[in-house]
Amino acid sequence: MTDQFSKKGEAWSARFSEPVSDLVKRYTASVFFDNRLAKADIQGSLAHAGMLAAQKIISAADLADIQRGMAQISQEIEAGQFEWLLDLEDVHLNIEKRLTELVGDAGKRLHTGRSRNDQVATDIRLYVRSAIDDVTGLLNQLRGALTDLAEQHTDTILPGFTHMQVAQPITFGHHMLAYVEMFGRDAERMADCRKRVNRLPLGAAALAGTTFPIDRLQVAKTLGFDDVCHNSLDAVSDRDFAIEFTAAASLIMTHVSRMSEELIIWMSPRVGFIDIADRFCTGSSIMPQKKNPDVPELARGKTGRVYGHLMGLLTLMKGQPLAYNKDNQEDKEPLFDTVDTLMDTLRIFADMAGGITVKPEAMRAAALQGYATATDLADYLVKKGLPFRDAHEAVAHAVRACVDLGIDLSEMSLEQLQAFSKLIEQDIFQVLTLEGSVAARDHVGGTAPNQVRAAIARVRGQLGN
Amino acid sequence: MTDQFSKKGEAWSARFSEPVSDLVKRYTASVFFDNRLAKADIQGSLAHAGMLAAQKIISAADLADIQRGMAQISQEIEAGQFEWLLDLEDVHLNIEKRLTELVGDAGKRLHTGRSRNDQVATDIRLYVRSAIDDVTGLLNQLRGALTDLAEQHTDTILPGFTHMQVAQPITFGHHMLAYVEMFGRDAERMADCRKRVNRLPLGAAALAGTTFPIDRLQVAKTLGFDDVCHNSLDAVSDRDFAIEFTAAASLIMTHVSRMSEELIIWMSPRVGFIDIADRFCTGSSIMPQKKNPDVPELARGKTGRVYGHLMGLLTLMKGQPLAYNKDNQEDKEPLFDTVDTLMDTLRIFADMAGGITVKPEAMRAAALQGYATATDLADYLVKKGLPFRDAHEAVAHAVRACVDLGIDLSEMSLEQLQAFSKLIEQDIFQVLTLEGSVAARDHVGGTAPNQVRAAIARVRGQLGN
Amino acid sequence: MTDQFSKKGEAWSARFSEPVSDLVKRYTASVFFDNRLAKADIQGSLAHAGMLAAQKIISAADLADIQRGMAQISQEIEAGQFEWLLDLEDVHLNIEKRLTELVGDAGKRLHTGRSRNDQVATDIRLYVRSAIDDVTGLLNQLRGALTDLAEQHTDTILPGFTHMQVAQPITFGHHMLAYVEMFGRDAERMADCRKRVNRLPLGAAALAGTTFPIDRLQVAKTLGFDDVCHNSLDAVSDRDFAIEFTAAASLIMTHVSRMSEELIIWMSPRVGFIDIADRFCTGSSIMPQKKNPDVPELARGKTGRVYGHLMGLLTLMKGQPLAYNKDNQEDKEPLFDTVDTLMDTLRIFADMAGGITVKPEAMRAAALQGYATATDLADYLVKKGLPFRDAHEAVAHAVRACVDLGIDLSEMSLEQLQAFSKLIEQDIFQVLTLEGSVAARDHVGGTAPNQVRAAIARVRGQLGN
Amino acid sequence: MTDQFSKKGEAWSARFSEPVSDLVKRYTASVFFDNRLAKADIQGSLAHAGMLAAQKIISAADLADIQRGMAQISQEIEAGQFEWLLDLEDVHLNIEKRLTELVGDAGKRLHTGRSRNDQVATDIRLYVRSAIDDVTGLLNQLRGALTDLAEQHTDTILPGFTHMQVAQPITFGHHMLAYVEMFGRDAERMADCRKRVNRLPLGAAALAGTTFPIDRLQVAKTLGFDDVCHNSLDAVSDRDFAIEFTAAASLIMTHVSRMSEELIIWMSPRVGFIDIADRFCTGSSIMPQKKNPDVPELARGKTGRVYGHLMGLLTLMKGQPLAYNKDNQEDKEPLFDTVDTLMDTLRIFADMAGGITVKPEAMRAAALQGYATATDLADYLVKKGLPFRDAHEAVAHAVRACVDLGIDLSEMSLEQLQAFSKLIEQDIFQVLTLEGSVAARDHVGGTAPNQVRAAIARVRGQLGN
Repeated sequence: MTDQFSKKGEAWSARFSEPVSDLVKRYTASVFFDNRLAKADIQGSLAHAGMLAAQKIISAADLADIQRGMAQISQEIEAGQFEWLLDLEDVHLNIEKRLTELVGDAGKRLHTGRSRNDQVATDIRLYVRSAIDDVTGLLNQLRGALTDLAEQHTDTILPGFTHMQVAQPITFGHHMLAYVEMFGRDAERMADCRKRVNRLPLGAAALAGTTFPIDRLQVAKTLGFDDVCHNSLDAVSDRDFAIEFTAAASLIMTHVSRMSEELIIWMSPRVGFIDIADRFCTGSSIMPQKKNPDVPELARGKTGRVYGHLMGLLTLMKGQPLAYNKDNQEDKEPLFDTVDTLMDTLRIFADMAGGITVKPEAMRAAALQGYATATDLADYLVKKGLPFRDAHEAVAHAVRACVDLGIDLSEMSLEQLQAFSKLIEQDIFQVLTLEGSVAARDHVGGTAPNQVRAAIARVRGQLGN
Repeated sequence: MTDQFSKKGEAWSARFSEPVSDLVKRYTASVFFDNRLAKADIQGSLAHAGMLAAQKIISAADLADIQRGMAQISQEIEAGQFEWLLDLEDVHLNIEKRLTELVGDAGKRLHTGRSRNDQVATDIRLYVRSAIDDVTGLLNQLRGALTDLAEQHTDTILPGFTHMQVAQPITFGHHMLAYVEMFGRDAERMADCRKRVNRLPLGAAALAGTTFPIDRLQVAKTLGFDDVCHNSLDAVSDRDFAIEFTAAASLIMTHVSRMSEELIIWMSPRVGFIDIADRFCTGSSIMPQKKNPDVPELARGKTGRVYGHLMGLLTLMKGQPLAYNKDNQEDKEPLFDTVDTLMDTLRIFADMAGGITVKPEAMRAAALQGYATATDLADYLVKKGLPFRDAHEAVAHAVRACVDLGIDLSEMSLEQLQAFSKLIEQDIFQVLTLEGSVAARDHVGGTAPNQVRAAIARVRGQLGN
Repeated sequence: MTDQFSKKGEAWSARFSEPVSDLVKRYTASVFFDNRLAKADIQGSLAHAGMLAAQKIISAADLADIQRGMAQISQEIEAGQFEWLLDLEDVHLNIEKRLTELVGDAGKRLHTGRSRNDQVATDIRLYVRSAIDDVTGLLNQLRGALTDLAEQHTDTILPGFTHMQVAQPITFGHHMLAYVEMFGRDAERMADCRKRVNRLPLGAAALAGTTFPIDRLQVAKTLGFDDVCHNSLDAVSDRDFAIEFTAAASLIMTHVSRMSEELIIWMSPRVGFIDIADRFCTGSSIMPQKKNPDVPELARGKTGRVYGHLMGLLTLMKGQPLAYNKDNQEDKEPLFDTVDTLMDTLRIFADMAGGITVKPEAMRAAALQGYATATDLADYLVKKGLPFRDAHEAVAHAVRACVDLGIDLSEMSLEQLQAFSKLIEQDIFQVLTLEGSVAARDHVGGTAPNQVRAAIARVRGQLGN
Repeated sequence: MTDQFSKKGEAWSARFSEPVSDLVKRYTASVFFDNRLAKADIQGSLAHAGMLAAQKIISAADLADIQRGMAQISQEIEAGQFEWLLDLEDVHLNIEKRLTELVGDAGKRLHTGRSRNDQVATDIRLYVRSAIDDVTGLLNQLRGALTDLAEQHTDTILPGFTHMQVAQPITFGHHMLAYVEMFGRDAERMADCRKRVNRLPLGAAALAGTTFPIDRLQVAKTLGFDDVCHNSLDAVSDRDFAIEFTAAASLIMTHVSRMSEELIIWMSPRVGFIDIADRFCTGSSIMPQKKNPDVPELARGKTGRVYGHLMGLLTLMKGQPLAYNKDNQEDKEPLFDTVDTLMDTLRIFADMAGGITVKPEAMRAAALQGYATATDLADYLVKKGLPFRDAHEAVAHAVRACVDLGIDLSEMSLEQLQAFSKLIEQDIFQVLTLEGSVAARDHVGGTAPNQVRAAIARVRGQLGN
């Protein structure tokens, strides 16, 4: 007897009077990108078959056949010998068809009590769960590398900028830890997303559940899911987890883009705060002198790619009626590309952190330009009793005088300073040093070197290293 | 002595040689939209002042003055008597300036140890935290209303659709619970987002912390924050929480758009599954017969607005160097509009759920069209021993014959059915009824009425009602 | 003597002290997607070399060598024998390196007076120009196919919907022509975009122009460009054309998504206005009766992909300082995928238009439901002298009475109708027929069959067939 | 007799059995933002009424009444005395209702042969057309201001950057003209968009046209439209023009964001290429020394807002079935905000161009750092007969030696240079000067001062000043 797939080349099934056109076949097939799900698909099928046998829906012999067949298929895929056929549309039918070739009727029984709708939803969740674990590992690796860099520069002073104008002196270690915080929140978001990914759709079948006495909780347990999806319609149509993952990925790329922007500016010759090792840079086809920070530039550019995938997935789901629609096939490529982009980018950034050379003198020179300690002078006046707003105004006058004279605040004489406030005394000059300024910001989250050291210890505790 | 803001109309401060142009003032001012943060701003300032006094940075008398002044300002704002001035740029300076008018030097001391950078970050977090709580309440209200509707229709059968084609019979209660699940995940995401919102940036000052001996943990405690932001640069430049909130909001709107799409289709005359009460509909200026489901249509349209805000915020943060840049002022309007859109939409949907009239006959008629029980026939054959793939093929042949004859599977005689498989016997006719089909999907997450009742009980437990 | 690329495996060039790491090589290489530009790259190089020789910058012998070498490379690529090397980064260096292997020093002279920055900009413009021409051809093919369908149904009546509620009777031909208009505007936008694509960046070199006496106008003429880019910095950093193309593509997909939505709804069994030939549909792995409109569903889903690419490209260019940055390498994949998606989708839609079977009886039945001619009754009263607003109100009363009685307006007796307005006479019954209603909208753009025929003639004129 | 709107507070019309709830009224009303269309609405209504009278559909007396009423309403609106009522939903009904109050039955006749669907589409097109004209004027104003700045600096040399690394010397005038080109393309796109905006939807009525003998071409002529929309369904559902406008606006903001990024970097103290006048800057609430480039920062931030609106509008239209749906009401706010953002930003940038102070010494100092003339050395060797790739390699060696020695190429002795190529002679030193380098790029689009002057003349010709 022929089965449903044996004549796919001719017509979809007995229901159809003409075969799918070649153009349509290519347009609708997913096998050339969803074969990445093969491992998850086999894993899910084995758990499903195990449950079917435990529930006596299929025989123990069928299960053994299925296990044997799947073991061989896994080997064939691993060895690159598995032939993926366009005619069989997707990863699921390709594997099932091969299974039936290998083990006969047991293969035709595998799909009992399930549908591709819940099968693919299960596969993607297994894939995303694994991607989350990988991404989390790389986030922590990057955090570790940045923390190492911070540790080398707990006392290296550079100007902190707001509006790209010199604001106040900070330490380079402190600056690096800002990114460690960002990537730490990213790891938290991945963990939160994982909770919602890690629920089993299998058992929802096409959309309504199945008439077979399945045991969804057992399948969930076998596959390491925390829970099952509690509504079958929702189970097959939900792609929230893909969107939530891509949104979290977009934030990671936002942070990468910010760090990239800074690295690029810092390596620009007028700024010159850092150098990036040659192995992370490339040259020019025309200009022999060029050494370009390609990696952060490209990473900054890849931000758009991930934002775009997020927007694509949101558009995809907008206004879709329940339950499953073919539109959903479009969830995979953006998701896969997002995972690849994240993995490559985080890995290379973790690596590149070790290739950053800090130039403390350039940083120091820059911190001495731009009246970075003006706030310290204002704070000094407040401590002498002046209300803050009046102190701010007094210092603004002093700065303007310095601008006119072309000197720094610390270069004024005590007499000159006292013209702006009688409260100023000799002890002001210590306050106006870069070291004094930095050390004075000595509270949780502040830039003082010993706070930076404490923050590093805290991160090390989180990372367990 | 003049203070920093007394001559804002003339020039920004003593540092500046010419006043800001009127065009620039209007372009850069935020007071006409950020005055929505007034309550949060005062709340934050009082906590800050309380800590300053506890740390002896300002006197107890100053604190009392500030508290008195702020009480009056709160009253003035509540009463609509507070005059918001463009010249004073934003909500923060407007309030501080008024405070100084009311209480003198104490007002000028309030800004000690903080900056607008950490102040505004604190205000927005207080605002978003409160919005999250409100949105969560409305999500639960909507879940409750949909559960009520589900409870009335645990046994009402309609066709479940995939690809907008009749798939299998389901119950309307089950269908409503799919949305209850979606909005439940939304509430989870809001709770996860809240954890990251609920960290205190205050104390980061401009970007580096402050030279005053502040106690950030006390301020956090006073304001109900779970923790402080652990890096001052990150604290003032981080807008992750706004993006994460808007991403979660986008998913809520995705779900709203899907539900809207279904309501609109269901109310279309050819489908006719439901009616929506007149009070949620409007008519036409030209066609006297029209009754249009405006609310779900408009809600579906508003999805774009929220997606757009998400895209806007991501673009805003892309490639921004640390720490604070003026770009960030653009975070507020999309955030505020997102909150308003969510609140209005969820409230009206919770209300509208009670205005939906279900038409069971139309649903039943539709379920009888389209061979909804074909899968049941296939499952029947499997239970008789046929492998699933062969069963599927046999039923496909039967369906094609029915299409040619213009009849339903259940209208075939036993003889006709047996032409497709000898395994079919008299008991098939019970299997092919809608009630039989629905009742057979009797496992966690399935559409069987008693599973729907169990799911309702589960949701009631979550909602605590 | 070694040249710049001979040691790429070791170090980028003599300027560099260590080779690019393998991770970086893979991260930054584009050759595996930009080799699609090979034909354009060779075409551009030949035009450049021709000009160099004409200007005596290289010798005639060098030009002949380059032409010979490029001819062979073209053959190798066509034959699939060209070996693309990751080590050589991109399509440009791969081809240039092979050229030098083949023809020696002449190959090393090709890059005189140009840079990869202007070279790649030229290649992409050639590619997009060609894509625009292809897409325009397919848009016209689709317009032709839809016009054919319209022509078969100039008199087929279906209900026109607003808000998915029955509004007024229209003809199916008229409905199809709405899409013909949309795709016509799309073709206009492609033509407008083409003007801005078709300007030559070559000659801008790295960013500032070159010291060689080049003749940019001659190169433009050779390559069929309308003009040259008039500023070298802009020439190498401009990606407007890619964004404009993708924005126009997004509108095409918007139209595709709207048409898809309608086809899917129309093929849903409760509506049943059309059938789509089996060769454009697929079935279900579990439900034997299913025939799903996969093509329009997938096309609707692919809308998100193209919107996402637009958003990605906009993000890419946001805030980029001049002139060229490595970020720009990220312009290619979204552009290529947009072109592929458009081409595949338009081709399959043009094909599918011929596979749509219209079901006039179902359409007519639907048009008779929902008081589609109520506006005609109001217009009738206006023509008898009643102000429109009063006429609208009178008909609203009549419709409400019909709703209560469960009958259509045309089923009311003259006496019943006259209860709502004394102005109604026997001639009303012709007005209330579907044919009368449709025929009465007889002005440019109206749904009357002879207007539809006129509109078809107009489109045929545009399409030249 | 009551008309359709007299009881809107109670129920939408006689068709409805209960009034719209207050919550729904607020949710669905648009009057508080669409009253911005009042002028266009009246303009459109007068053209419509004029045509109705010319076609004898209404009397001359009715027309006179309508004109009189509208004149008064225009005055009331101008004077701020018009009372906009939420109960009347939108700008159209508010004005029509007031007209009927003022002139009685003639007011009730105005809506003959039209619907709000075609009315609002007409209003928005009139609005967008006017916005396009305003934006184009501002684009030209900005181009003029930048050209003025360019003209002052045709010979001012700064380093041209690629990858934020020094590439080659360019002139500041040339750099400014890059933006003049970008904004010129923007003006072209606005003109192209205008063609598609400037088509009249009026006459499409609800969706199918009208039964009255209207003359659409006359209305088009009266209102200055180039053509009519040729399909009534398309006419009422088309929002392409809004999306196309917002896409063109997004590109304008892309250019603004790039220019902003450069201004901000250039004003950063380490770079110091420019200063921006105090009137375009603001200070800090805490740091007395700060002078921040708020305008370009905020403009860069506003890019996200416009991108977001584009995304919102695309999402809005995705998958909408024909013809009009209430979703479309959401087209207005993003459109209005886009127009406001563009107008404010372009105006302030045109103004700010005059407030930029160029610092030629800082620019020159930067150009002398980074081996900006290395390409000139390579070109020099090519002109002496060396193939370009070999020349590039020779110069790379020379640059690396300079890096090691800490000197510039021009600081090497002839002997030192000759170690890298025997072809180098005494005349090289002229080639290695900044002036020599810039002057040598002397072809269309190149950075040579006389090319810049020619380009300025070309732009002046386009601008007509």
